[in-house]
Formats: sequence, C-alpha cells, structure tokens
Amino acid sequence: MKINNLNELNTPCLILDKNLLQKNCNKARKKCSELNTILRPHVKTPKSIEVAKIALGKDIGPITVSTLEEAEYFASSGFKDITYAVCIIPAKLKRLNYIQLKYDCVIRMVIDSVFVAKEIVNYSKLNSTKFEILIEIDCGEGRSGLGYQDEKIREISKVFDTNHHSKLLGVLAHAGHSYSTKNKKEIISISNIEREQALASLKNFVNSENNSPIISIGSTPTLFYAEHLKGITEVRAGIYMFWDLAQASRGICEIGDIALTVLASVIGHNQQKGKILLDAGALALSKDISANNFMPKAGYGLVCDPHTAIPFEELSISEVHQEHGSIKVDNINWFDKLPIGSLVRILPNHACLTCAAYSNYNILENGSIVDNWSRTNGW
Amino acid sequence: MKINNLNELNTPCLILDKNLLQKNCNKARKKCSELNTILRPHVKTPKSIEVAKIALGKDIGPITVSTLEEAEYFASSGFKDITYAVCIIPAKLKRLNYIQLKYDCVIRMVIDSVFVAKEIVNYSKLNSTKFEILIEIDCGEGRSGLGYQDEKIREISKVFDTNHHSKLLGVLAHAGHSYSTKNKKEIISISNIEREQALASLKNFVNSENNSPIISIGSTPTLFYAEHLKGITEVRAGIYMFWDLAQASRGICEIGDIALTVLASVIGHNQQKGKILLDAGALALSKDISANNFMPKAGYGLVCDPHTAIPFEELSISEVHQEHGSIKVDNINWFDKLPIGSLVRILPNHACLTCAAYSNYNILENGSIVDNWSRTNGW
Repeated sequence: MKINNLNELNTPCLILDKNLLQKNCNKARKKCSELNTILRPHVKTPKSIEVAKIALGKDIGPITVSTLEEAEYFASSGFKDITYAVCIIPAKLKRLNYIQLKYDCVIRMVIDSVFVAKEIVNYSKLNSTKFEILIEIDCGEGRSGLGYQDEKIREISKVFDTNHHSKLLGVLAHAGHSYSTKNKKEIISISNIEREQALASLKNFVNSENNSPIISIGSTPTLFYAEHLKGITEVRAGIYMFWDLAQASRGICEIGDIALTVLASVIGHNQQKGKILLDAGALALSKDISANNFMPKAGYGLVCDPHTAIPFEELSISEVHQEHGSIKVDNINWFDKLPIGSLVRILPNHACLTCAAYSNYNILENGSIVDNWSRTNGW
Repeated sequence: MKINNLNELNTPCLILDKNLLQKNCNKARKKCSELNTILRPHVKTPKSIEVAKIALGKDIGPITVSTLEEAEYFASSGFKDITYAVCIIPAKLKRLNYIQLKYDCVIRMVIDSVFVAKEIVNYSKLNSTKFEILIEIDCGEGRSGLGYQDEKIREISKVFDTNHHSKLLGVLAHAGHSYSTKNKKEIISISNIEREQALASLKNFVNSENNSPIISIGSTPTLFYAEHLKGITEVRAGIYMFWDLAQASRGICEIGDIALTVLASVIGHNQQKGKILLDAGALALSKDISANNFMPKAGYGLVCDPHTAIPFEELSISEVHQEHGSIKVDNINWFDKLPIGSLVRILPNHACLTCAAYSNYNILENGSIVDNWSRTNGW
C-alpha cells in the first residue's frame, strides 16, 4: 500500500500508525481486564493527550507521568487522576500543589524516604494542602524504592498515621529489570515477584485504617506475561502503545507491531565508503542502542520501506552525527534503490527517547497522513 | 562562591555560565583574527539568538546552521547570512526559498551530487529564485562530501556555469574526524589536510569567473590547532562556545572551560546498592557517552558541586533511565554529603545533544542566575 501524501512532510519527523496504536492499546486494556485490574497508562512514552485517550479507550482516566511538566500538560486538558511515578523531593511540592489547585486534580506522589515523608507532612500542615502518597517498593531493579521488608516502610507509614491532610494510600513498584531479559520464564518470575513483594510490603504499614490500599505495579513485559494479578489494584505501563526495537529484540512484541517510526530522507550517497546518508541522526533518533543486546544488527534503528514500514533486509543506521545518519551498505544496488531524495522510515531502538526530540506526531491512518498531534517535552 | 538563587530553579535544567561563554567565544574570535579568517559560528550547539550574538561579538553576522528550523529561527531574528551545512535535497528547496524571501536573507546551501545540482538549477529557473551553493568536500571524515579530486566537482560546477539565478560560490569542508583523536600532532595534520584539500578542490571548478570563491572549513579542534589558514575565507565551529567532556577528554579544552552544565536534584538514596539517584536521566543528559573513549570515568556525565561546577572526585552518572540518573558511590559518606533534595551540576558528554532536550538556558553570571535565554529545537 502506498501512503498517498508522505512527500508533503518535512523530514525528519515522527509517523504514528493509528491503527497499530489502537491495536496495541486495545491489547493492553484487554489484558488488564482479563487480569481484573485497572490500567493506568504511563504517558511518558507518548506525552500526548490524543494518545492517552486512545490508551484509555475514553476521554479521561487514570494516567501515570514521569515529570511535573507532563502532569501539568495533562491536568490542563482535564485529566484528574495522575500518578507522578518518580520520587518527589520537598522542593517540588509547591509546583505539584499549584497544579493540583489550578486544575482541580490529584497528582499522587511517590516517596522512598522518611525525610521526604516528614517534609510532605510539614508542608501539608503549613499550607493546608491535600496530598496523596505511595511508597515506592524496589522489587529487584535496584534503582529507587525500598525493599518490601525494609523497616523504613513502617517508619514512613508512622509519619502519615496521624496526619489528616496527607494520606498514605499504598505502594508502587516497577519491575524495570524485566526489560533486561528475553527469557519468558524469567519475565514471568519477575512478574510474580513484583506482585508478591508489592503485596507483602503492605504488612509493614502501621496504619491499618486504610481498608482498600492502592497496590500499583507495572512494566510492559511483566503486564503481558503476568500469570495473575490477584490483589493488585492497578498496572502502569507505557511502551506497549508504540513498541520499539528494544521490546521487539526481547520478543515482547513483533516488529510489525511497532506503531512509531521516524520518516527520513536520503540526502547523500558516499559510494566510496559504501554509505547512504540520511537527514536523521543522533537528535532525530537518539543515541539509545538498547535493542542491540539481543538484536545486534539494530544499530541506531532499522531502515524500512516508507510505505509499509517493513525493514529492508540488512539495512540499519550504523553511525550517527547530530543531523546525519549513515547506512552502511554492502551491495551497491542500494544506491539505485534509495536515490537521493527518497524517503525511508526508521524503527527506533527506544521510542520514549526518540519521540522526545519532536513536538508532534504525524498520524497515519488507512494509507494517508490524516492528522498531527502535539506532545509535550521538558520539565 | 555560592550562587545565591540556585534553589529557585526547577530541576533538571540547563545552567549556562555567561562569563565562561564569553571567554570561550572571545578565544575563538581571537584565533580566527590571528589566522586572518572570518568566523562563522555553528549555532547548532546553542540554537540561541543570545548565544549567537556573544559568539559573533556583535548583534548580527554570518552563522552556520544544521537544520532549516534553525535557519528560520535565526532569520526571523534578523540574521541575513546563513549557511545550512547539511546537504540539501530538492524537497527542501521550497522551504529554504520561503525563509529567504520572508526574511530577506540568504541561506547558502551545500551539495555533493550532480543530481541535486541539476534540481536546484531547474527549481531556480522555474521559480526565478536566487540560490547560493557550496560543494561539500570530504577531507577524510568519510561522511558526506566529495573527495577533493572527484570528477563530480567538475560536473557540478558545469551545471551552474550558465545559470544566473543560482550561483556556485565555492566549497565547504568539515574535518569531523578531528574529534576522534587526542593526539595534537594528528589534529594538526588533519587541520592541514582540511585546508589543503578544500583549496585544491577548487581547481576542478570549470567556471573561473568567480575570482573570490568561498572556501569554508571547520571543526573546533582543527580551528584551535591550525598552524595557518592561508587562502581559507571562513571557519565554522560551534562546540567551543560551551565545550563539553568529549572535548575535554581529548585535551581540546579544560574541564574548567565548560560553560554548560545540567542542574539536578538528588531524589533518592539506595544505600543497599550504593547509589545516589538524581532527577536527571537519559532525557536530561542524553545517552551520548563519547567522552568515555578517552575519559573512562565520565559515564553519562561528571557530577559537580552545584556552586563551583568543580567535579566531585570520582562521582559520575553510571546509569540512566528516562528520568533517573544513578551515581554509584563506593564511600557511604557521599550519602551525607549529598542528602535528598540537594543540588548537583553535571558536566555533559556532548553539549549539542544534552541541550536539545531543553527549551531554554538559565544564565549564570557573577554568582547569580540573572536571565533565561530561549533556544529552538526540532526540524
């Protein structure tokens, strides 16, 4: 199938395949429904109102964000139930509270320290602000969060026990280490541990008055490989909306599921060096090469037919400079197949990082670019 | 010295030290003046009007850009003499011409193919547009451009010989491979070759009526290590304005010269894993690790005192996720020295990529954040 108006776009730019996006989002919602839990899409991947609505399957619903800038962007469009899933620090409480008040929403925050817990309570008392808090549990990634048996969980829960402005609602865990394996059994095991430790961590709460605690877990692989999620109240995941080569390289999705590509133009032929030059380099693609662990030929991205997004066999971006991407070609026929001025689409290693260079998505639907959706960036 | 209002900034954000910026820019202008050539600053690093003015030492002057978006941004602020230093393709002529006409400026373009040369002439005739063109010469980087003896130089110059709307003005070379060594003698040799081949390439021009051809060369290392630039009409360079760890690692600058840092907050302590967590991750820093070839401890950036920007011995960003950066610490005293909520500044690997995640610079001058300068991004 030919996309009839691809030539009207300025390259490089993002192409988002709406049909694939909808399919991917439906699949995640279906999985959560089967597992009897709520999906709280992580919008740090798309950072776009329109994409969030498709992820939710409705106009408004619970979302997860990774920055307060995202929180404000979504709150300003009417989203009321937002979890900011990166540990808060006292200096950010003022802005968070400002967004809550301005847009009449709740930005649930995450902590893993007694110090911050106390500061939240102090701020809350001083300013009569209402805050909702989750404790982050480290279920094996080794990044932020407390071990599920950590004594600090008890200490933090004590801090909130008698405070009426700020409520400790439950826990949040993220099995980010599920991204580092392609072994299905291992991911299932990580998924089980994520669930079990999130649940077990609650036993350390001193305040038992909360009869329906929030137990929020999530990563795309552990969601899709979850055997069950009994007791888990919500799941956070994001990359499943777009997918990317990092996920495909681990077998979590197929290459044909990837909804997000970069459209680029061939800007030069270096026949002596066997290179085809594109106008998509380190900024347009990012320098993430995380797919290469399990897909060594991924380079900085797989080069595809611009209309079908099917990879040209053996073509990947082998080198990037700020605005140049180079495809190393062994067969000189490629110079004829991809003349200067021709278009390609590139499957990215890590969609979250690639998208961050752009302010908008060109929406592809049924063979045409039909729309342009904006996204937010920055902090 | 303490910066008195650092705590008022939202982290992560960019800090640009104006005094260092001015010193760096003065040094480059002085070097060009000594070499009796014109500096055409490459604004792909700062993408900021205010920085470009400091680089030029005046309000308006010749600049180099890497995207048409940059060209439009600078043209809209009155810049009249712009070189777009990435090979143009026919599909981009319309936009280039639009910017030229709208802002009454010249965006000199670069080509390395006979096909594009002919397309430019056709477009120019059809639309009565005036274009200025340089042929890109590959002086050893092996990216874009023609070898200085390539027969295609003659062919391209023939295309423009009889056309009066589009003028072939000269050549442009970029010794980008000067970034891949720290050997001073090697850089001097690359600088000599860049100059010699740019000059020699002109012998292949068939149209001899142009008595003052433009011979544009440049990269920051080859500028600063140039022994002489006889015959070279202008030099393009950009990273010298800010510097970064990639340049410091190769001895082109000192760490103390780096004018651009990322301000970040400590958001967590993972004592079990010996990690300090920051709110600056892959998006705030980029995934560029190019300094590590010659500075293996650079990681994703060196962690510095927030007031002095002097690196804390042995602290670097060892791991990044989208919004988290981790500092691996061997000595537990660091948890006391960098409590949750405290600030650090991070020296980036590659300033051009790090800056691209931000829409503005916080300007540091004489111990205070005194201003905020916007920048452009995207295409």
